[in-house]
Amino acid sequence: MNIIDIINKTKNHSELSENEIKWLVDSYTDGEIPDYQMSAWLMAVCLNGLTERETLFLTLAMRDSGDILDLSGIDGVTVDKHSTGGVGDKTSLIIAPTAAACGVYVPKMSGRGLGHTGGTIDKLESISGFRTELLFSEFESIVQRTGFSIISQSGNLCPADKKMYSLRNATGTVDSIPLICASIMSKKLAVNADCILLDVKCGSGAFMKSEDDARRLADLMEKVGRMSGKKCRAIVTDMDSPLGNNIGNALEVKEAIEILQGKYKGRLYELCMELTAEMLSLAGKGTVAECFEMAENAVSSGKALEVLRRTIELQGGDGRVCDDVSLLPQAEFRYEIRAVRDMKITGIDSQEIGMASLILGAGRLSKTDTIDMSAGIIMNCSAGDCISVDDTIMTLCSSTVSDFSEASFRAVNALKFYGI
Amino acid sequence: MNIIDIINKTKNHSELSENEIKWLVDSYTDGEIPDYQMSAWLMAVCLNGLTERETLFLTLAMRDSGDILDLSGIDGVTVDKHSTGGVGDKTSLIIAPTAAACGVYVPKMSGRGLGHTGGTIDKLESISGFRTELLFSEFESIVQRTGFSIISQSGNLCPADKKMYSLRNATGTVDSIPLICASIMSKKLAVNADCILLDVKCGSGAFMKSEDDARRLADLMEKVGRMSGKKCRAIVTDMDSPLGNNIGNALEVKEAIEILQGKYKGRLYELCMELTAEMLSLAGKGTVAECFEMAENAVSSGKALEVLRRTIELQGGDGRVCDDVSLLPQAEFRYEIRAVRDMKITGIDSQEIGMASLILGAGRLSKTDTIDMSAGIIMNCSAGDCISVDDTIMTLCSSTVSDFSEASFRAVNALKFYGI
Repeated sequence: MNIIDIINKTKNHSELSENEIKWLVDSYTDGEIPDYQMSAWLMAVCLNGLTERETLFLTLAMRDSGDILDLSGIDGVTVDKHSTGGVGDKTSLIIAPTAAACGVYVPKMSGRGLGHTGGTIDKLESISGFRTELLFSEFESIVQRTGFSIISQSGNLCPADKKMYSLRNATGTVDSIPLICASIMSKKLAVNADCILLDVKCGSGAFMKSEDDARRLADLMEKVGRMSGKKCRAIVTDMDSPLGNNIGNALEVKEAIEILQGKYKGRLYELCMELTAEMLSLAGKGTVAECFEMAENAVSSGKALEVLRRTIELQGGDGRVCDDVSLLPQAEFRYEIRAVRDMKITGIDSQEIGMASLILGAGRLSKTDTIDMSAGIIMNCSAGDCISVDDTIMTLCSSTVSDFSEASFRAVNALKFYGI
Repeated sequence: MNIIDIINKTKNHSELSENEIKWLVDSYTDGEIPDYQMSAWLMAVCLNGLTERETLFLTLAMRDSGDILDLSGIDGVTVDKHSTGGVGDKTSLIIAPTAAACGVYVPKMSGRGLGHTGGTIDKLESISGFRTELLFSEFESIVQRTGFSIISQSGNLCPADKKMYSLRNATGTVDSIPLICASIMSKKLAVNADCILLDVKCGSGAFMKSEDDARRLADLMEKVGRMSGKKCRAIVTDMDSPLGNNIGNALEVKEAIEILQGKYKGRLYELCMELTAEMLSLAGKGTVAECFEMAENAVSSGKALEVLRRTIELQGGDGRVCDDVSLLPQAEFRYEIRAVRDMKITGIDSQEIGMASLILGAGRLSKTDTIDMSAGIIMNCSAGDCISVDDTIMTLCSSTVSDFSEASFRAVNALKFYGI
């Protein structure tokens, strides 16, 4: 086989065979195919697409480039959940313990944040002592005992994806639906749970800006999951404005705990209950409506919070945060943005809020940046709210940045409103 | 400026500015932009194209990446000619001395052959002693004295093109009309003659397989040449079957000399007279019809052959080949392919003939291969000819290959015919 022939086939809309795709992925991972040939192929994919069959074969070849977890030791149905990510998305912290409390097993590998979106692993590390790097045997044992565990991605899971992802980032070849599908699904299939729920975020704060693209990605991932022998469902959810009130690592853990304490029942709570219901239903626990009720009961009874506390403790963290969120890192500096007149908020640009949060220290621009766990933004309003003059619109928090001018400029800029 | 933004612009059909293209070419030539980013951009160009303005700016940036010849020392109108190349294309060897004999100056830089097509420089080197690497001052002086000189491309002419061309070869990004245009025209503009005639070959033996593509490339190059301030004309000529009877280095020099001796007046002679007439007319020597007559007179009077002899001698070669072609390298082994029945030849696939010639030692697969100057193929028939059983169809020649089985298989395969 020959890389130039493969590039030319994709360039000329001719379908690659399973063997050709496997050879391409393996040779690139081994370093036999150089970056400059792979990037030409990736650009051809961006512009010409791949067929469903090609996308499946690419996903499987990427999955097979490294380890595949053996979850057969877990006695019960395993369910994984993936969100394409967005600003303020702390749903995993709520859904995993809630689903576990309803009798399924959630073995979850998560990533760190980059750019304007946060990562579940960073959020969990804001809990004092919490370890996100476990041996597989520890991970498996915690899942079996509490129903869920969340760890960071293991070293040799999908090395092909790691290499391709960083090349895509450097060559303007990120926004291709088949490539995004293969990147996400190869990792999900390597984690190897029985059921996979995919939450495709759509809107200004997400990678998929349009409803059409989000729907296409969701359908493609669902098909690839099913063709790979998994129970798989993909749903599209809104990410036009930030999810929940808090953005930032410790602030998001706090909000997740407060949801599990039954304190809030807004858009975030509803979404989490819906996603949990989908997961339970996929795992055969009943209809979506029945499962929705189970999920709500798990929260209102305090069972979900209890599962979270046990997992935190088994992963070395301070479980007392579940009763007392003030044990989480607190910001040293705070700055309130107040309304200068009566106004109606018509929208909040998540990407801009994410950037403001990053400037406060809550995120990283490059992989080696360190994070200020206490930093972030507390929103005191949602899209549609009317605000009176001098009311607090949002509060900026940081322990590393005391000059709020840049962050507040971007945060104010994120607001769409008119005077009333 | 930022390479990812530039890649994304081309990917999203948004036009690049002159400054962006200049920065891209300069940064790539300097090594600041790595191959893997350039190849992604090149693939985006292959699939999305470039506008005429972008193609002009790319050509000029590539031209300006190295030296530009100063031909102002030559006292007269300078005319350059370029052919996109094909099997058996020895037109430069005939046209340059003929045009020079008619009073224009032809300063020509040529390339070496790669793959199934030969190169003018290799052909000339089959003449004993002929030097193709001259100082610019020698080159200029020979052009002034005889009317023409042909040398190999100088070290620092269009370094951007050299680097991009080898990357394109390795990444399936060769067949893009704007990229081919920029590659050819940057070199022509760096040689910097007053007038440029472009001969775009079309057919199975050429890079442009279809008439439409050839016409598009011709029009684009003509426009870019004119926008750069040159008198420029581009014509499309047929390359479906090999040009002339001989393929191979010494064999093609022999055929060129025999044409200048007035021995043959077939398709090759006619084409050379037409191209010479176009060059002379571009240079203001009269109408194309008047110039055609001038060109024919230059050949029939022996003046063109005399110009060739003088240039060969001034470049260190043995000028006696112009009277005695047997002084050229002769093949040690010969093999005649004969007709096994009466047949009518309906076509000859140039690319296959070129490959058979390469197998005999006349070409190179990689840049470092050495060439057997005596090797090649003598065609005893043209498309349309009727051949009787046992007549020689072609003769394979080589001094390095004595087993003709592979070459004859490919050569026979190149014939399209039916029995009569």
